[in-house]
Amino acid sequence: MAYKGDANLEQLLKTAKETRSLADIKDILKGIVAAPEDIAAPDRWLTLFKSASDKAVAGQLAALKDKMAEHPETIHQNKLADTRAEMARRDIDGFFVPRADEYHGEYVPPRAGRLEWVTEFSGSAGAAVILKDKAGFFTDGRYTLQARKQVNAKDFYIGTTAPDKKDLKRPLTPTEWIEKNLPKGAKFGIDPWVMTANEVKSVKEKVEAAGGTLVFVDSNPLDAAWKDQPAAPISPVVPQPLEYAGKSSDEKRKALAEKLTEKGTDAIAIGFPEEICWLLNVRGGDVPCTPFALSYAIAHKDGTVDWFIDQRKLTDKTKEWVGKDVRIHDLAEFSGSLAALAKQGKKVWVDPYSAPIKAQIIVTDNGGTVYTGNPGDRSPLQLMKALKNKVEIDGTAAAHIRDGAALTRFLAEIADPDKAATHTEISASDTLQGFREENEKFRGLSFDTISGAGGNGAVIHYRSTPETDQPLTAGPVYLVDSGAQYLDGTTDVTRAVAVGTTKPSADMIENFTLVLKGHIDVAMAVFPAGTTGKPLDDKARAALLEKKRDYAHGTGHGVGSYLSVHEGPCGISSASTSVPLEPGMVISNEPGYYKEGEYGIRIESLVTVIDTGKKDADGKNLLAFKTLTMAPIDRKLINADLLTTDELKWLNDYHAEVQKNLLPLLEKTDPKAAAFLKKATAPIQKNTTQFKINGIKGFLF
Amino acid sequence: MAYKGDANLEQLLKTAKETRSLADIKDILKGIVAAPEDIAAPDRWLTLFKSASDKAVAGQLAALKDKMAEHPETIHQNKLADTRAEMARRDIDGFFVPRADEYHGEYVPPRAGRLEWVTEFSGSAGAAVILKDKAGFFTDGRYTLQARKQVNAKDFYIGTTAPDKKDLKRPLTPTEWIEKNLPKGAKFGIDPWVMTANEVKSVKEKVEAAGGTLVFVDSNPLDAAWKDQPAAPISPVVPQPLEYAGKSSDEKRKALAEKLTEKGTDAIAIGFPEEICWLLNVRGGDVPCTPFALSYAIAHKDGTVDWFIDQRKLTDKTKEWVGKDVRIHDLAEFSGSLAALAKQGKKVWVDPYSAPIKAQIIVTDNGGTVYTGNPGDRSPLQLMKALKNKVEIDGTAAAHIRDGAALTRFLAEIADPDKAATHTEISASDTLQGFREENEKFRGLSFDTISGAGGNGAVIHYRSTPETDQPLTAGPVYLVDSGAQYLDGTTDVTRAVAVGTTKPSADMIENFTLVLKGHIDVAMAVFPAGTTGKPLDDKARAALLEKKRDYAHGTGHGVGSYLSVHEGPCGISSASTSVPLEPGMVISNEPGYYKEGEYGIRIESLVTVIDTGKKDADGKNLLAFKTLTMAPIDRKLINADLLTTDELKWLNDYHAEVQKNLLPLLEKTDPKAAAFLKKATAPIQKNTTQFKINGIKGFLF
Repeated sequence: MAYKGDANLEQLLKTAKETRSLADIKDILKGIVAAPEDIAAPDRWLTLFKSASDKAVAGQLAALKDKMAEHPETIHQNKLADTRAEMARRDIDGFFVPRADEYHGEYVPPRAGRLEWVTEFSGSAGAAVILKDKAGFFTDGRYTLQARKQVNAKDFYIGTTAPDKKDLKRPLTPTEWIEKNLPKGAKFGIDPWVMTANEVKSVKEKVEAAGGTLVFVDSNPLDAAWKDQPAAPISPVVPQPLEYAGKSSDEKRKALAEKLTEKGTDAIAIGFPEEICWLLNVRGGDVPCTPFALSYAIAHKDGTVDWFIDQRKLTDKTKEWVGKDVRIHDLAEFSGSLAALAKQGKKVWVDPYSAPIKAQIIVTDNGGTVYTGNPGDRSPLQLMKALKNKVEIDGTAAAHIRDGAALTRFLAEIADPDKAATHTEISASDTLQGFREENEKFRGLSFDTISGAGGNGAVIHYRSTPETDQPLTAGPVYLVDSGAQYLDGTTDVTRAVAVGTTKPSADMIENFTLVLKGHIDVAMAVFPAGTTGKPLDDKARAALLEKKRDYAHGTGHGVGSYLSVHEGPCGISSASTSVPLEPGMVISNEPGYYKEGEYGIRIESLVTVIDTGKKDADGKNLLAFKTLTMAPIDRKLINADLLTTDELKWLNDYHAEVQKNLLPLLEKTDPKAAAFLKKATAPIQKNTTQFKINGIKGFLF
Repeated sequence: MAYKGDANLEQLLKTAKETRSLADIKDILKGIVAAPEDIAAPDRWLTLFKSASDKAVAGQLAALKDKMAEHPETIHQNKLADTRAEMARRDIDGFFVPRADEYHGEYVPPRAGRLEWVTEFSGSAGAAVILKDKAGFFTDGRYTLQARKQVNAKDFYIGTTAPDKKDLKRPLTPTEWIEKNLPKGAKFGIDPWVMTANEVKSVKEKVEAAGGTLVFVDSNPLDAAWKDQPAAPISPVVPQPLEYAGKSSDEKRKALAEKLTEKGTDAIAIGFPEEICWLLNVRGGDVPCTPFALSYAIAHKDGTVDWFIDQRKLTDKTKEWVGKDVRIHDLAEFSGSLAALAKQGKKVWVDPYSAPIKAQIIVTDNGGTVYTGNPGDRSPLQLMKALKNKVEIDGTAAAHIRDGAALTRFLAEIADPDKAATHTEISASDTLQGFREENEKFRGLSFDTISGAGGNGAVIHYRSTPETDQPLTAGPVYLVDSGAQYLDGTTDVTRAVAVGTTKPSADMIENFTLVLKGHIDVAMAVFPAGTTGKPLDDKARAALLEKKRDYAHGTGHGVGSYLSVHEGPCGISSASTSVPLEPGMVISNEPGYYKEGEYGIRIESLVTVIDTGKKDADGKNLLAFKTLTMAPIDRKLINADLLTTDELKWLNDYHAEVQKNLLPLLEKTDPKAAAFLKKATAPIQKNTTQFKINGIKGFLF
């Protein structure tokens, strides 16, 4: 008899009052297939299913069993049960599953998608805690709906804020949930490769508060349970030449060595691939959107580096490029090399925020000394990398001009209501990507494009899927947040624009203008050296806050140079209180405003910190921002009357700069877009003749 | 372009002078498939293969990559490299891979076929040692040819005696190889679940002799590396009713409790499923040929038992059967329960020969005391189980009569030269199995039938495969060693018989008769209580040794009662010096003689030890054997002149007994076989008229 499918069997099971789920039944069948056939009583296995007294059920169970026996390569797993069995093998009662992998980056390769594997949750932020008899899943508010759809609430407590405002109870955080649910005397496991010392600290506190003990497992139970876990990625590692890097690896390594010596350390264990790629002037392709080569490194105070990487990613050219002061080893040798160093009694810098806590453990267990800096200190490489050199700044500026031209061609296309009407969110982002791909230095997107029409624009980290995709003109405001990787720089830009034939409301225009005021006030800020991001974040929100409005995200994040689109240590947010802004940093300036279900506004440009050459009364250098992003800000959404004279001047000057930079490129490639650019960047005047259409104020231009 | 297959690509690679193997290349492609696609440079991955400068190679690599991407469920592994990566994760430089699994039995389920997975060796005995840069595989002489065929000598040192006599150098044992190859300071890993304390001891000595340290890993690196590892088997566990078991589980548990109390222990941790199945009067079907339910147990001195088993194997009936004094838990709870016991300061008996050393570790680590008995002592359950009760003995005897009838039907068929000519080794064993299957108490074979024609009969543990299968009449002597599991007992019988039209040589007949003398001398031995197997082993070999001939295996092994066909603690061999034979034991009596490439002779019957009711001069009870196996011994191969009068009388008496027991059964079911039986068991006379055919002495009957 042939197997008639899961739906059919589920119906039969229901009729026969089977209490087990189909997943559980498949799990049992998997074990039955793995046992020898009972030649004397070939049907005896059916006694394990009470519902098999029903002949139809028995027939279909037999058919399913035969099918599973024929396709042993298709792995049917009860993931949570298998994980718990592996936990029991390791003698632990609980286990923490972060989103991060061994390299602690934003993107993880399929192999490291452990959180998604065990919870089915595909978002980019979250964590799970698995105990013997219960489990919890946790994510932030932006993923609430997705979590409820993907994560099985029978298996997991779902800790995320409610999407509707009625449920105001704050959900538990992972560590609060641990404290509440971990039995006294329990052993709680951590994979010390996928968590940093800083992350472990907070878990440890709560585990001990619950009367439990924290245990470091020597292998991840999920990897053991995950039978069809993909391979680790292999992608070529290529040199990042001096024409883009601006500074030789030798120079960088020497500068790092000085910092190591300064702190009395012998070496630093680096677990963060973006720092390694920057230090060695190489790039890879192991994860989406970020040109990383997943690897570890140990940099020594003599300026040499031991680099631990799957050597199959390296061509002879790349090996030659990194030079003889960079000793190449297999990834598996990292532990042993670090232990050997520790055995010599060396003092090793291990960043508690980015390196796996395992690195600390190895050093300590082998008699070495761990240096973690002062509380709050980050890896010295963070700041070194953040302070871009002139070649990097020039490259980034050049990349932004080419990227701005591509974005403007796209904005020109959707400014035509007839053209806009032919687009959905997904076709729009595909079109934009197509314009970018035409550039010869294009290396990929720097993150998945956020293409949000109408109400979808209000979902801060929206990703359009075939299920959510809607016409671009679903609302009068369309938000597109996108960026790309170029050999000479990384871009990240958001524009919200009016689309279609429905005119934007006065409310939309007012909020857009308030956001723009914040954006401009940051862009034209002048501040003394030593200033951190916090006061600039205040500035970005001021206009909105005056109207009791705000946005639930930071104003700015650091951006790499053909590296990660999100990088430390600098930023513009209420939390940016420890790292002063310094010339050469590249940061985003992106205030926003979101009206749930209606529209989203965000105006994002990248800026670089410059020295004005002037000093304040205390003799401190006065710093300012130079905006790198080159793309028009939609005039149809601006009420110039709400702008100060200085703000308006900044806007007109910016648009003039955009026109000057992009027009030569567009005139060559896309005359229609060039014509659009001229109009879109024309100066705006205050007291522009206003008129009303359908009772809504608008501007004529 | 379609993929043209491995052979084609290997040829292309060879032409292009690629230095990597196809397996290594597939491994790299697996990583490439797991990395994001490089949309800007979709062919860049080809730079990782120098040979891809050849366009034909590049095309086929691309086709293979596409094929692998389409079938991610097909797992391509570099098993040894993946195992070493998992070893590195566990920070160990070496790892021991025994054939045994967590239950230390002769048969392992597919899930525990770790040795075969990593070495490709499919035999039933062997071990591997994996170091960082080399590995060794070890097996005994009977598997030499198979090992050379299956195990890749580029990856593994192959430690096994040479099949030809020229290479006389004794190969290294696994522990000698460790001592020789393990680098000083290395950490050598052991999975404490799959090795007993006794096994670990010898490894530890050599590891330390090499200057290394023994480390217990908390999870097996092979399980983590083995991505398509099958599930653990699930097979129904059924009651073994009193009509076959003869003694209630309650009685057995009470008797065990007395032994625990006697030794001052609180409990015993049982890691050997056959002991658990015997103690609880249950049977299962998790491994081939042995009715085991893989599980662990802890028996307490109050007569109760905690049983740790995948509960999905248990029907309500079975749960009810074991009763409330047997507390059922999930398998994963074994560690925790044992730890809890140890935390109470209990003294726990852990057999160093059959329980995983992990059980000792858990007890010790948690403050308990481990009791292992005196040096050489076995688990108390071994002896308890070996001393069969009257119901078991009667059942076994009954099973042997039914089994003998089936075997005699088979012997009758192949005694007809025309019929014999239609058979090969495999068709013959299938036919024999068919006769056994007709019995309603038949539950399966007790081991894979050894069906060896001519020279194949000389391969002691021969298993016929389609490659080695040959006509039954390949030589004049055919050896068949087979057995079955019945609800009331387990059988194991070997007969060597003359087949076909070529008459057996005088040499064959002489050797058969010498083997028979040994068999009879054991069978009719009378010995005082306290006698171990060793003097009986001497008796079995005496006739052969007089002619400077011998056989390279023991003479007898214990046999279970509808349990394992090989069980401890008793045996008949040169090593059987510590366990005295006692009434109720069931043992095999199987001397043999093997002429390489020509023929194999073995005469095996099971016997049970009985009390003669007489005493020797010292007042010790005189014991003897009663032969249980009922099957004719081929008269065509016997030279009665070589037998003593007592031996001949034994043979004639035995054949009379065989006829008496089998004839009623065969007359009903198979008149032809009944006729054969009558002739085959007719009394033999000394000085029987002899005549020569083609110069070879034979007997007329």
